[in-house]
This record gives sequence, structure tokens and C-alpha cells, in this order.
Amino acid sequence: MTEPGITFELKRGSASGPRLGLLRTPHGEVQTPAFMPVGTQGTVKALSPDDLTRTGTQIMLSNAYHLYLRPGTEILEKAGGLHRFASWQKPILTDSGGFQVFSLSQYRKIREDGVHFRSHLDGSLHVFTPENVVDIQRSIGSDIMMVLDECPPYPSTYEYARKSLDLTHRWAERARARFAATEPLYGYPQSLFGIVQGSVYADLREESVRFLIDLEFPGYAIGGLSVGEPKEEMLKIVRLTAQMLPKAKPRYLMGVGKPEDLVEAVSSGIDLFDCVIPTRNARNGTVFTSEGALVIKNARFKEDFRPIDETCNCYACTNFSRAYIRHLFQAGEILGLHLATLHNLTFYHRLMSEMRSAISAGRFDEWKALFYERYARDREAA
Amino acid sequence: MTEPGITFELKRGSASGPRLGLLRTPHGEVQTPAFMPVGTQGTVKALSPDDLTRTGTQIMLSNAYHLYLRPGTEILEKAGGLHRFASWQKPILTDSGGFQVFSLSQYRKIREDGVHFRSHLDGSLHVFTPENVVDIQRSIGSDIMMVLDECPPYPSTYEYARKSLDLTHRWAERARARFAATEPLYGYPQSLFGIVQGSVYADLREESVRFLIDLEFPGYAIGGLSVGEPKEEMLKIVRLTAQMLPKAKPRYLMGVGKPEDLVEAVSSGIDLFDCVIPTRNARNGTVFTSEGALVIKNARFKEDFRPIDETCNCYACTNFSRAYIRHLFQAGEILGLHLATLHNLTFYHRLMSEMRSAISAGRFDEWKALFYERYARDREAA
Repeated sequence: MTEPGITFELKRGSASGPRLGLLRTPHGEVQTPAFMPVGTQGTVKALSPDDLTRTGTQIMLSNAYHLYLRPGTEILEKAGGLHRFASWQKPILTDSGGFQVFSLSQYRKIREDGVHFRSHLDGSLHVFTPENVVDIQRSIGSDIMMVLDECPPYPSTYEYARKSLDLTHRWAERARARFAATEPLYGYPQSLFGIVQGSVYADLREESVRFLIDLEFPGYAIGGLSVGEPKEEMLKIVRLTAQMLPKAKPRYLMGVGKPEDLVEAVSSGIDLFDCVIPTRNARNGTVFTSEGALVIKNARFKEDFRPIDETCNCYACTNFSRAYIRHLFQAGEILGLHLATLHNLTFYHRLMSEMRSAISAGRFDEWKALFYERYARDREAA
Repeated sequence: MTEPGITFELKRGSASGPRLGLLRTPHGEVQTPAFMPVGTQGTVKALSPDDLTRTGTQIMLSNAYHLYLRPGTEILEKAGGLHRFASWQKPILTDSGGFQVFSLSQYRKIREDGVHFRSHLDGSLHVFTPENVVDIQRSIGSDIMMVLDECPPYPSTYEYARKSLDLTHRWAERARARFAATEPLYGYPQSLFGIVQGSVYADLREESVRFLIDLEFPGYAIGGLSVGEPKEEMLKIVRLTAQMLPKAKPRYLMGVGKPEDLVEAVSSGIDLFDCVIPTRNARNGTVFTSEGALVIKNARFKEDFRPIDETCNCYACTNFSRAYIRHLFQAGEILGLHLATLHNLTFYHRLMSEMRSAISAGRFDEWKALFYERYARDREAA
């Protein structure tokens, strides 16, 4: 087995409730709770790596599924891994591709060995197994790799969720074994996180936590949420799962979410997040402010010469008006997508930073009450 | 009449042959010969103003036609002009909209009063007159404004070119009068340049130069070229027109061109250029190097881990490989458009800078020979 790639230091907090932590990786530190922007194809859409750093990004998420299909592992290996290929020197976490494959509208079939699917690019047939998904992430060279899991749809019957969870667990064991049997390719250690599944069933989630703890992963993700279940149900599962997870290891809530979801999940003890909302919504013209979201394309911003958010010091807010950014969207200019993305990620990272400060000062509840007081003015959230 | 907005100092050179100059504007100095990137809608596509500055841009061109239609002069005036609206603090030159209107495939009709046309956005009817085109550019607040002209198509009969030139001249007089009768809106003086027309007919070009010199513009553009005529014909007209223009005033060759065209036109005594080639070709995946142009999407760059241009120090070349930029184009990522644009403009500005150095050192001919020696390797120019 290789030396451990990441270490996690819990600076404040406990198993449940908001936590302040420090995640150390071969590519630098991540102060948690932290948000990971999604760079599906090795780049966060509409930003350069320098821009991404300027937003306050500490760690980027990238998708094994997309990178496996294009540019492919051969080119990634020849480039010396994704950090070098994409010129991103901070940490990278890659998902396992499971979620992407299960979201495919094309052919996909779940078998014991893995998941058989057709590429969304050219229809070619592929198989993801717990083993080759580890291998793919070795080729990518991500600091944190994820095991292949099955993400059951919502709603799923108890019987289906039960069967699916058993498969996910067998796959987790196989991924763990493959990880132990292989070496990193680029001279720095990598880490493999487990993924808790179990749909919305509390006993399955509990069983999943126990099973994965036995496999001793250096970190745990909560998967299978934000797939259509009611928000209350999602937050309930997050709460009960987080409190069962080992206190000393980082917890990552996959694919969540809106600003208010992050606040709630941090309240429940989540350390890491990823979501396409800040970047995708930016490209659709929705920008986040401390008072709620704005649809910047709306005619009411035509002559609004204030910045997106008076309290934000990002490049977009310190140089451009809502009226100008609206003009860029109306005119179909790429700069509009760029500025909105830059702002939204800055907003997300500032939100996380505020939460870290509040936890550090022992005033998270006060901060949270203030957040809702301001953010409740939201009338246009996408 | 308002105080003169620009001044031009000829530092080296004469009426004909390569010239080194310094153009002073209310928004800063421009070392000539200079290339002006095209920011049609108030933004150079795929770049922020900060990025644009990083490429070495000294002055941006913007299109009166597009800005008049969207966002419109009312918003531009409320914003305090284009410099403030677009957060571009360096000089701006605006074309008169004439060329855009004459390029419209929709309805357009040239009359004595001006040109009647339908908007390409919504089909609405508009009229550009020599007078309102000055007014529009007052609203934009460009440092250098252009008169409304008629750009005759190629080929045009002598008779048509003759008639068209007379109209262009009557319009130039009217524009000059309107300019003298109006004041700038934003506290700094603006300047109005005349445009030499005459199609490919030497005597008409000569007549046009004489006519415009009498109107005493602070600078002169050569228009109506690069519209389909053979390159040799274009360069011949540039040569003969440039040498007739007043030595002490800046000359601007509109809409030209490829790197080799800039070299030839500088040889003939041109000081200013604008063209969409570096930015449009970038977005189509064609990048310029000191050895010629490359179509970066080509499969042969799949595993080419060298920068676009080994000798370039732009952000794209110092951080990314041809293989990665190709990946971005294959994957449809905006970052590809951004990096290619950044590089191409850096290349164009470096080319101009090299020419300025060579002129300054009295070695332009040597430099030009070396340029062709390297650049002749070009096998893929778009």
C-alpha cells in the first residue's frame, strides 16, 4: 500500500454540528468546509485556472467519465496527469463516473462486474468496473479518487435500494483492493474515498456507513442525494448520515447545492461540497448575491448601473454594472458567461469562508440567522 | 469647434515607407504602427478588458452600428460612455457603421440623406446619416470617430465608384460640419477621421485624398479595401494612397488583415490597423505562430505537448500545450476560445512591436526579410 495521500485535521467541531477542518493534500491545503467547483472536462467552464484561483477556489472537481472518453487516459498519462495537462496546481478530486453513467439516456446496464454503457459522444461501448475506474483515476492523477458506486434513482423501492447498496458495497471492496494493489503514476500519493448510499432509507444509510468504516477509507462521501427527493428528506439523510461518520475523517456531500443547502449541510457537519449550480446558473444568467439570486438578463437591469453585489470584491463586481453584464448576455458575448461565473464562484467561496469564520468564532448559529435574514429577500432564485 | 482630441508625433519615417509614431489621445498614448482589436459590441470576444491589456492592446475598435442597435445610445449616455460602460480605460476608435450597413444582407438603400436599413436583430427600420452617425459616436464617447462613408463593393465599375465617391465626399463634409457644431458629452475631446474611398481606381483615390485634405481631418483612413479585390491590387492602392496623405497625420488602413498584410502595409507607411482575423480565426481554432498559422483542432496536435509558439510569453503559451488547447476545442470549452484569442492578439501586438523596434533601429528591411524567411513555413493559414 502507498503512503496516505491526504490527512485531515479537525480544528473545531465534533461528529455532528458545524466543523472547521484542514485537509492536506499533495497539491496543497484545503480549509473546510469548502466548495469544489466542477471542471467536468478538466476546466471549469468559462474560467482559466488563474481566474479559478482568483475566485478563492482551493480544490477543483473533475469527472472521470468525461476525461476517460476525451482526451482519454493515454493522453492524460503522456501529459503527466491532469494537473499538468490543465495547468491546475491545486488539489483535484475526481468522481468515479458512476453518477454520469447512471444519468446517461443512452444504453447502460448494471451487472455484477460493473456498468456497461455507450459513450454519449459516439455511441461506442464501454465498461466501468470498480477496478478500471481506479485505474482511470490513477491516469488522471487526482489527489482524491472516488469508488465506483451505483446511484439509485429517486424514488427507489426499499428492495431496489437494498440490492443496489449491496452491489455498491461489493464494488467498494473491489475498488479498495485495486487501490491497494496499484501505485500512483506521478510521484505523489493519491487517496480513495468511499461513498455512502442507501437512498432515503435511514437503516440502509446506517448500514452503509458501518460497512464503509470497516474498509477504512481516508474520507467518506454521501452520494445518491439531490436526485429528486424533497429537500427536507435530503437534509434529514445528510444529518443522520453525517453524525454516524467518523469524526476525524472528511465528509463530502456529492452534488449539493444551492447556497441555503450548503448552509444546512455545514450545520449538519459536512466538510466538502461540489455542485454545478454556481457555474451552470451563471451561464444561464442567474447570479447570486447576499440578498438572493438575480436573473441578470431581466429587463429591469437594463439601466441598473450598480454592480451585481455591492459587497463583493470580485473582478466582475469591481469593474462592471448589472446593465453591462445584461448587455453582454443580450449580445451573446462570452464575457458575460465569464463574469457571471467568476462572480458566482467568488460568492460561493465567500459563503464558505464566512461559515468557516463563524465556526472558528463559535458563532455559527448567529451567522446562520443573519444569512437567512438577508437571503430571504430572494425572489428570483433559479 | 472643440479642442483637438488627438495629436500625432512622427518619430521616424516620412510620407512613404515605414513610420514610427506616437498617437496621443485623451485615454492615453498609442505607439504606432499599432493594431486595434475589434470589440464589436463593446467587448473583444472571449477576453476581459484586463486580458485585453495583457495582450498588449493599446487601443480598441468598436462598431457604432452594433452599439447603436444594442444597448443603444440612451444606455451608453446614462452609463457615461463606452469607456465606463465596458470598463476599458484605454483609447477607443469607433467605425461609422457604414461598412456594417453595406454588408447587411437585409434591406438597405443608399440615398442622398444617408443609408436606410433594417436592423439585423429585429428587422426594424433605421437611417444612418452623416450627422446622426457623429451623434451616435458622441454618445459612445470614442476617442476617434469615423465619418459615414459608402464602401463600394468589388468589383465596381468606374462610373459607380465615381458616383459613390462623390456621395462619400458630400457625406464627409456634412460629418465634418456636424462634428464642429457639437460638443463631446463626457468632458474629454473627441476626434473625427476622414475616409479615403475610390475603389481600385488610382485617380479616384488621388482625388479623394485631395478632397479630404481640404477638410483638414486630424487623421485619415483608407477604406473600401479587403472587400474581395486581389491582394496585389489592395497593396498597390495602399501604397499609392499612403504616399499622398499628409506626412504629419496618422493613417489607418481599415479591416486589414493577415500578418503578412500588416507587414506590407507598414512598409507602405500605414500607422493603424483593425481586423477581425486574429480574434475570429482564434475562435475557429486557427492560431498564429512565428512560423505560420496552425489549425489547433487538427489531430496532429493530439499529443503535441509543446506550447502554441515556443517564443511567445502569453498566458496560453506559458501554461498550456497544443494538446490541451486542442482538447478544449474538441470538448467545446470556452477556455479554448479564450486562450486562442489571447495568444493571437499577443502575436499580432508582438508583430507590431517588432516592426516598431525595427523601424526605430533603421532596420525594417532586414527585419522584413527575416519575417518572411520564418513565416514562409506557413502551410495551414486559414
